[in-house]
Amino acid sequence: MHLSEITHPNQLKGLSIHQLEEIARQIREKHLQTIAASGGHLGPGLGVVELTLGLYQTLDLDRDKVTWDVGHQAYPHKLITGRYNDFHTLRQKDGVAGYLKRSENPFDHFGAGHASTSISAALGMALARDAQGEDYKCVAVIGDGALTGGMSLEAINHAGHLPDTNLLVVLNDNEMSISPNVGAIPRYLNKMRLSDPVQFLTDNLEEQFKHLPFFGETFTPEMERVKEGMKRLAIPKVGAVFEELGFTYMGPVDGHNLEELIESFNKAHHIKGPVLVHVATVKGKGYAIAEKDQVGYHAQKPFDLATGKAYPSKKPTPPSYSKVFAQTLITLAEENPKILGITAAMATGTGLDKLQAKLPKQYIDVGIAEQHAVTLAAGLACEGMRPVVAIYSTFLQRGYDQIIHDVCIQKLPVFFCLDRAGIVGADGPTHQGLYDIAYLRCIPNMTIMAPKDEAEMQQMLVTGVEHTSGPIAMRYPRGSGYGAPLMEEGWEALPIGKGEVLRSGDDVLLVGYGTMVYPAMQVAEILSEHGIEATVVNARFVKPLDIELIGPLAERIGKVVTLEEGCIMGGFGSAVVEALMDADVVVPVKRLGVPDKLVDHAQPNESKADLGLMPSQMAETIRKSFFAESKSRLAV
Amino acid sequence: MHLSEITHPNQLKGLSIHQLEEIARQIREKHLQTIAASGGHLGPGLGVVELTLGLYQTLDLDRDKVTWDVGHQAYPHKLITGRYNDFHTLRQKDGVAGYLKRSENPFDHFGAGHASTSISAALGMALARDAQGEDYKCVAVIGDGALTGGMSLEAINHAGHLPDTNLLVVLNDNEMSISPNVGAIPRYLNKMRLSDPVQFLTDNLEEQFKHLPFFGETFTPEMERVKEGMKRLAIPKVGAVFEELGFTYMGPVDGHNLEELIESFNKAHHIKGPVLVHVATVKGKGYAIAEKDQVGYHAQKPFDLATGKAYPSKKPTPPSYSKVFAQTLITLAEENPKILGITAAMATGTGLDKLQAKLPKQYIDVGIAEQHAVTLAAGLACEGMRPVVAIYSTFLQRGYDQIIHDVCIQKLPVFFCLDRAGIVGADGPTHQGLYDIAYLRCIPNMTIMAPKDEAEMQQMLVTGVEHTSGPIAMRYPRGSGYGAPLMEEGWEALPIGKGEVLRSGDDVLLVGYGTMVYPAMQVAEILSEHGIEATVVNARFVKPLDIELIGPLAERIGKVVTLEEGCIMGGFGSAVVEALMDADVVVPVKRLGVPDKLVDHAQPNESKADLGLMPSQMAETIRKSFFAESKSRLAV
Repeated sequence: MHLSEITHPNQLKGLSIHQLEEIARQIREKHLQTIAASGGHLGPGLGVVELTLGLYQTLDLDRDKVTWDVGHQAYPHKLITGRYNDFHTLRQKDGVAGYLKRSENPFDHFGAGHASTSISAALGMALARDAQGEDYKCVAVIGDGALTGGMSLEAINHAGHLPDTNLLVVLNDNEMSISPNVGAIPRYLNKMRLSDPVQFLTDNLEEQFKHLPFFGETFTPEMERVKEGMKRLAIPKVGAVFEELGFTYMGPVDGHNLEELIESFNKAHHIKGPVLVHVATVKGKGYAIAEKDQVGYHAQKPFDLATGKAYPSKKPTPPSYSKVFAQTLITLAEENPKILGITAAMATGTGLDKLQAKLPKQYIDVGIAEQHAVTLAAGLACEGMRPVVAIYSTFLQRGYDQIIHDVCIQKLPVFFCLDRAGIVGADGPTHQGLYDIAYLRCIPNMTIMAPKDEAEMQQMLVTGVEHTSGPIAMRYPRGSGYGAPLMEEGWEALPIGKGEVLRSGDDVLLVGYGTMVYPAMQVAEILSEHGIEATVVNARFVKPLDIELIGPLAERIGKVVTLEEGCIMGGFGSAVVEALMDADVVVPVKRLGVPDKLVDHAQPNESKADLGLMPSQMAETIRKSFFAESKSRLAV
Repeated sequence: MHLSEITHPNQLKGLSIHQLEEIARQIREKHLQTIAASGGHLGPGLGVVELTLGLYQTLDLDRDKVTWDVGHQAYPHKLITGRYNDFHTLRQKDGVAGYLKRSENPFDHFGAGHASTSISAALGMALARDAQGEDYKCVAVIGDGALTGGMSLEAINHAGHLPDTNLLVVLNDNEMSISPNVGAIPRYLNKMRLSDPVQFLTDNLEEQFKHLPFFGETFTPEMERVKEGMKRLAIPKVGAVFEELGFTYMGPVDGHNLEELIESFNKAHHIKGPVLVHVATVKGKGYAIAEKDQVGYHAQKPFDLATGKAYPSKKPTPPSYSKVFAQTLITLAEENPKILGITAAMATGTGLDKLQAKLPKQYIDVGIAEQHAVTLAAGLACEGMRPVVAIYSTFLQRGYDQIIHDVCIQKLPVFFCLDRAGIVGADGPTHQGLYDIAYLRCIPNMTIMAPKDEAEMQQMLVTGVEHTSGPIAMRYPRGSGYGAPLMEEGWEALPIGKGEVLRSGDDVLLVGYGTMVYPAMQVAEILSEHGIEATVVNARFVKPLDIELIGPLAERIGKVVTLEEGCIMGGFGSAVVEALMDADVVVPVKRLGVPDKLVDHAQPNESKADLGLMPSQMAETIRKSFFAESKSRLAV
């Protein structure tokens, strides 16, 4: 049977180990070809080929439910659930998603793009199953990186307390999240990986004790005491932490040995209550280049399979915002030893790996633990350090309560740098950074800014670091900057809450924020071609908003447009409308931004085109809204 | 020395055990008298009197930093840090806060009202200390309930990985959060509490082994194998989970034995790296009535010390929203076995304890684990259950990413019931439920509503349970309803996104949301006395907003006021302004709500008066804004 013929995972059930190994080979081949051609997550999928096949051979996918944590480890799953033929469209607009999606496929039982959700979801399904008197298996497959996220541990605490609720947690231990894992739990897992199996001892301990002369019938009291102690000591075994928390622990299992995997899963299915099967896998398995550089090949742009090297860009692109951020932060951190860069398993993505390389003492990676990252920063700020917390907009949602409760209420000078803010492209809805303006600006004491380009980001970095009277946040997008000339010296902090006028015109006021400032300029150019002259303001700050600048301009010009790369519900445009109303400037305001719906995976410009956020589209919208001969005509 | 003479905790350092016991007695006396007179958290403080005194005798509070988790266990701390004389003002406006506050006292090193933050904060301080070459102690005191919050576990994972960072975690194990604790970790702690100390065995194991005949010099290979196994097995001891995670575990220590406490803390201070001292305490210790009913005496209204009974209310009050919520949910759950009430250690507060008593199979308490609660509900919804997640507005902030990523993106029918939404009173800034409108309404697929009174809440409960096409949220306040006649039968779902007109008038349109609908009616009455006739709309839904109703009214009347008990930044009023602008209705809108600042502890009506949100004040604001003869005159 060829992989392409498998459209339902139950087709695997009759296959021999040898046949499964052949399917595994084909999965790796297809996976590698596809990622090499169009990019995507490389290492995670390669590591779980056998795990997926082995697990699915022991399940009935018409009934059983599998929750894959994060989802980027689920490409093999995609290839055996009817998406082989479309797999070349991976992460492309209208193509196969890069993460899991309930709406994409009936075997995607739970969607995921963020980490650490799978045990909670699978336990919910298991409890629903039991409540409804059903009988099927509920399985969570979670990486060792995701396991350290607090939510996973909350779920383990709950599941371990339910001895009658059957739940299988498969721990895909590849010793990595995106970067090498951080913390005591990964170290503990590693210890187990390195240990010989001692199962025989704990399984048969009582039996073996009986045959030892020492444990005979007549003991001295001293001996009795030692025996009691030993019985107690004998309870823990490999996996003691999980066993103490109510799980049956099995492992470590060789994650690339199908026979061992199938045997272990079959055994696990017969154990009552929560079971954890610890599977040792190799990220990038089967592609030597990726096995050697597991961080580099976590995810890839299109590359040459033979060499592993990314194809050169067609045209040179300016450095990314993340890169400029990291470079600038390093310079600032060299000058000020109080500056500490903090991230939560986003070292490479945020560029903080470069800070780590240069100034390792001024760098902390807490692993997948955004909540802890934020409150750790609050503690650091209490004692006079300048914590700079670099977390993607979408992942900072995980630390929301901590931002409110630990940072803003206490008015502590923590500097939040929100990478990947705005439309993120191929990662899709789970990763869109669209809500941060709305969810941050409602919090008292918060100052919030966004640069129009990478040079202004440098200035804002200085601004943020020097802002010691309270918390401050800066958002910036994924991807390349505009190639704005970077400042090498003479950086000065921007005045807090002050915008700037970039262009003057009497017909309409365009107020742009962050990544939408240059597009606002382009819109102004297009409008000018139609005889409409726009004033363009770069707001710089959404909070405090520069109403002293915007208010009089709005009153004079009488027509306002706001432009933002974020949700328009409660976002930047709302802030402008609120401030104008409070200033008794009652003029029409057209808010341009991401409407109240999910944004699917696509190239950012494709998404923007769909949302009407390309400059020409926005210019057209403005013309229709404000400069049509009569509104009623438009309704025709 | 009398307690009242202690204004600095270092004054404790010279005292004998006997003298400390006398101080402990005085703390309990003052604590009990104060709570009996004016209400507050009773049990938590009584349980940590000796822990506080013992710990502080081993610290130098001029240098060392102590982070008290949650803060309501810190009343003894307050009494020995200069707040004895003001303690009678506890939880009253301008009085001593019920939680910790950096701005209140120099010994409040980290503020807290929410759980599970202390280890992260203390670790942050410890890292700042080390980075700056300082040398002082950093201590977190955390309850066993708070320990199961994911953030605590993230912090333990991080701290356990830092063998050179001195950090003391004091685990105040009273076997309770507000209610008895849930989960495998509390069960594990309990096992340790019940165990005899076996320290001697593990400390001296090798030594003891040498003296046993069995472990002589000449072994059979079988014996050798058993010996090796035993050495491995001997590594874990009591506290194995913490030891495996990199902490030195000490305990359990009797939390009411000062001598033992002081000895243990002194020993702990000499151990390098992270140390956990497990202290067994009794919630309510020293007040027999509270020891017996630890849930009931977690926090108290004013009561008679002799009997423990709350003083009767001066006038009968209508049932609380929480009570009506619980009663109604029970009725619905009896009819529909798919309904499941879920809470996160807020069983008594939300009233779900009554659901538990009546329908235990339709009730889940996950402990202090809001993230897990939300995604568990998502999993339940996937499999056809109707999860009703009852969490306070302020604590739902902890599950924000889960609401977005696991519920809303997947459009799963989870029903969020946000108790304590709005101004909460004596609990103060950490507990204010002011941000939920803003943080929820920016999420696609979410439906959001708030009832004007407890009878409408019943209707909305029906509405929420019947809304199976996606997530839905309902907010309602702390405290009593209006005494609106409750419906006993014939409940019908409200149409989604439809408001109602409660009063008609041509001069101004008042659009109220939730708890501000009745005040809007009062405002209308006051305005009417001044000859200003208002139309009053009960919006019911902020999302979708009934712009079909509000738009034409606003256009016709020309002046709009929005009234909400939430932050005006991005809140309900912003939703109204946005919708009006989108509908091309450009009229002045005055948004009344909580301005962009923290709201301190006080009686709710005191806070509202401070914020200008009492009906007479709002009427005055409206008159000045819209009906002053000339605006300039007001400026005089």
